[in-house]
Amino acid sequence: MGGDRAPDEIVAGARQVAEQTGITVALVGRPGAMGDTGDLPCFPASEVIGMDDDPGQGVRRKKDSSLVRAAEAVRDGRAMAMVSAGNTGATMASALLRMGRLPNVIRPAIATPIPNLHRAWPTVLLDSGANAECTSPMLVQFAQMGAAFARKRYGVERPRVALLSIGEEKSKGTPLEKETHAQLAAGAGGSGFDFVGNVEGRDFFDDSADVVVTDGFTGNVALKTMEGTLRFLIGALTEILSRPEAAEAAAALYPQLLPLAANLDPDSTGGAMLLGVDGVCVISHGSSSAAAMVNAITAAHDLAVGGLVEALAASVTPAPVPDGAGATERA
Amino acid sequence: MGGDRAPDEIVAGARQVAEQTGITVALVGRPGAMGDTGDLPCFPASEVIGMDDDPGQGVRRKKDSSLVRAAEAVRDGRAMAMVSAGNTGATMASALLRMGRLPNVIRPAIATPIPNLHRAWPTVLLDSGANAECTSPMLVQFAQMGAAFARKRYGVERPRVALLSIGEEKSKGTPLEKETHAQLAAGAGGSGFDFVGNVEGRDFFDDSADVVVTDGFTGNVALKTMEGTLRFLIGALTEILSRPEAAEAAAALYPQLLPLAANLDPDSTGGAMLLGVDGVCVISHGSSSAAAMVNAITAAHDLAVGGLVEALAASVTPAPVPDGAGATERA
Repeated sequence: MGGDRAPDEIVAGARQVAEQTGITVALVGRPGAMGDTGDLPCFPASEVIGMDDDPGQGVRRKKDSSLVRAAEAVRDGRAMAMVSAGNTGATMASALLRMGRLPNVIRPAIATPIPNLHRAWPTVLLDSGANAECTSPMLVQFAQMGAAFARKRYGVERPRVALLSIGEEKSKGTPLEKETHAQLAAGAGGSGFDFVGNVEGRDFFDDSADVVVTDGFTGNVALKTMEGTLRFLIGALTEILSRPEAAEAAAALYPQLLPLAANLDPDSTGGAMLLGVDGVCVISHGSSSAAAMVNAITAAHDLAVGGLVEALAASVTPAPVPDGAGATERA
Repeated sequence: MGGDRAPDEIVAGARQVAEQTGITVALVGRPGAMGDTGDLPCFPASEVIGMDDDPGQGVRRKKDSSLVRAAEAVRDGRAMAMVSAGNTGATMASALLRMGRLPNVIRPAIATPIPNLHRAWPTVLLDSGANAECTSPMLVQFAQMGAAFARKRYGVERPRVALLSIGEEKSKGTPLEKETHAQLAAGAGGSGFDFVGNVEGRDFFDDSADVVVTDGFTGNVALKTMEGTLRFLIGALTEILSRPEAAEAAAALYPQLLPLAANLDPDSTGGAMLLGVDGVCVISHGSSSAAAMVNAITAAHDLAVGGLVEALAASVTPAPVPDGAGATERA
């Protein structure tokens, strides 16, 4: 029921996956309000948490909403994973409240893949928006979960994890970055990854790290800044290529620009993932098309079958201080 | 003496300005180490704070460095403004320690222009890196100084000031953004600008604000993320256009791409400005060319003659709590 292009594109994507791969895709929503659902099974839910609804209130008050019911289906073992293009905050809240946190996890985080032209796999950025305020024990766990995700999702055997800051030196940043740098450099994250130090905003598209860790405020600003900058430049380029005098150039260029555009297309990445809850939860972009849903559902299936949740659970160690209390907080 | 391309490009730019405009440009540095300085007056300084030197230590220990001497020249009235392409932190520290803060200013901030294709003037982002940790009284003053700068530098009569956050609602962000939003919405910044609420990272290139205010950690990450994203996409495009089969398309496109590139070129913007010190201080990019120096020096001259410092001093009101003590801090 969620997303700017629901239900048509969502249902179309779900049907495509089911037809092409044999994966069983269940739709969760108001019976009769989802258009032509073909042979897909439906889990009924009478309510909808809208894109502009307050996430916490929505989940508490709308207990028969599609998001809450989807998370319950995963919790109860009737589904292996949930995928939503709806209200991001409510998707997180539903997954957190119904599936619960994995053992030792202080807070779940959103991991988002950033396309990379230097290699076959993207850079994983987390937290890209779940927690505006973070402590260094949380960031150490994000490093552990991000590395486990890069290994499961992209086959990166020994992920390189970097900390986002405003300079390469360990003395750069706020107390949160300085403390997190010290902890990761001292091996607080365990042996599942290599900590490669700080990276800066200009390094996201380089091959300097497989995972970049930051608090959810900074991660969200960085991700949206990338999005805005790409949109700005692609818009300017498209404007130039659409002028009559550029018609020939455009015809020659588009076949070569398209692979680049596909690489950058958020639809092709399979969506962001909520890591740290006891189930697979894929958060698709609100503007997701059918093609985006195909990728997101396939990724969700593969990760559930591949044991992502078990790998995450095994990667996270207890925080040195319970719930990170007393630790440095960016707030 | 500072910058990746010093002294040649720096001196060449200074000589161009002097020859073309009649502005008197003095060079500060080690006599004999600056190449052919033509007719330009030189203020001698025997030491250099390197790009990798610690800013604070550098300024304290190298009292006869070109940066310290340049700031003293402004303080003593022998120069109207200083321009540096050297160590950014040391440029700030020199200006702050030798020129001093303007009355009421808690902390100076770096203001950076972001190109905009919707209108003739850029968006001013501050703080883009001077203060990793900020309080809301500091952000309110950044709004005041940013507005005064947009008015003086770009002629924006009534600047629209926005707060960078992770959602448009006033409830979004960390306590720093929530408190700053509340203060600005309540008119704490005075009547010199219109507070237009929160913007997100994806809005930097839109026409939604003339000034965007944030802490120096987030501002620096956002600015470097833009830089990295533009470099990434322009690199990919250049690679495509340089293929033999794209030669004709490239020939047709370049004349139209060049104005776009010029608009995005950091060299054309005149550099970042340190606002809040008692003098004009332009911080140029470390890779500044002669053309960049021409723009930076011209901007510095125009702002000094135009009374930027006086306008800034008149715009800043005292913090509600002395030095922002007790206010919410992102740290």
